[in-house]
Amino acid sequence: MSNTRADILAAARGILSEHSLADLTMRRLATDLGVRPNALYWHFPNKQTMLAALADDILATVPGPTPDIDWLTDVHRLATDMRLALLAVPDSAEVVSSAWASGLAERGMETSIADVALRGGLPERAATGLATAICQLTIGLTIEEQTRTQMERLGVTGPSGRLFDEEFEAALAVILDGARFRSGGEST
Amino acid sequence: MSNTRADILAAARGILSEHSLADLTMRRLATDLGVRPNALYWHFPNKQTMLAALADDILATVPGPTPDIDWLTDVHRLATDMRLALLAVPDSAEVVSSAWASGLAERGMETSIADVALRGGLPERAATGLATAICQLTIGLTIEEQTRTQMERLGVTGPSGRLFDEEFEAALAVILDGARFRSGGEST
Repeated sequence: MSNTRADILAAARGILSEHSLADLTMRRLATDLGVRPNALYWHFPNKQTMLAALADDILATVPGPTPDIDWLTDVHRLATDMRLALLAVPDSAEVVSSAWASGLAERGMETSIADVALRGGLPERAATGLATAICQLTIGLTIEEQTRTQMERLGVTGPSGRLFDEEFEAALAVILDGARFRSGGEST
Repeated sequence: MSNTRADILAAARGILSEHSLADLTMRRLATDLGVRPNALYWHFPNKQTMLAALADDILATVPGPTPDIDWLTDVHRLATDMRLALLAVPDSAEVVSSAWASGLAERGMETSIADVALRGGLPERAATGLATAICQLTIGLTIEEQTRTQMERLGVTGPSGRLFDEEFEAALAVILDGARFRSGGEST
């Protein structure tokens, strides 16, 4: 029987890893933790608040900006690290999307990317546009990949044959070229 | 009592418009159409096949490439028309994401954007990367916006104050600059 905030988030990750987002209910969490549902509401007033904390927790594994490397290299690194953090927890891209929609999560990834871009010399609208383009590519494509994984796990379909990593890298390259263009840099 | 393929897709749109994706079941569709569930399976072997047809149907409202206008202008138009088509049907961005994940939908938007970019002189990897970046921005951001709309409709939360159109345009501008950069064009 265990019921700290960290215990609840660890149990939530466990349900996503072993089952799916559809199984992640407050009741199921309480059962897995061996506590009564009411005990969870001491930490989180409702499910949306728990999901927002879970989204922040999953993305908190991404190291922040690294000021001593080239800014475009750092943006590329933030994007790929964000994708890896999502891929580590099944259905987490949908959790993050929902948490960002609720307005209860921190959206720290967007802030980090925009900050690095501003430091790199991009105008503010381009910096926030870059952050949106990268975060939505990462979340959108990973929702597709994780949905596909669940379909394959349930035996609804076989392997897709899609190379999601390559789809991600090709799209990210175009977005980073847009950032380079705006900052007056040269192609690589 | 009505049960053509078009009737089923129209009823599915109706359920999304008046309720939500969670309410879109084969049983509910049959009830709304006044037929037995088995009658639907004559047109669609399962729910995933119906959702794929619905996704294709929603995006079929987007006019195809327009060869007589500047290619970057046409890509911008395809992106904004895709977004408008999704915004016209509640929860449709999640339907399209799921349908693309299943591999049962046509993904014609990606093909159209990549074709226009190839005609504009982009190398193949950049053309497909551009299509991925735009489609995932559109789907990802619209999933967030439509999720938020449902939360507001259910009274879970008040208005977000976010300007989704502006977030979309700022991100799209960066992506299109990447395409312009790759094609050797100049900034506007």
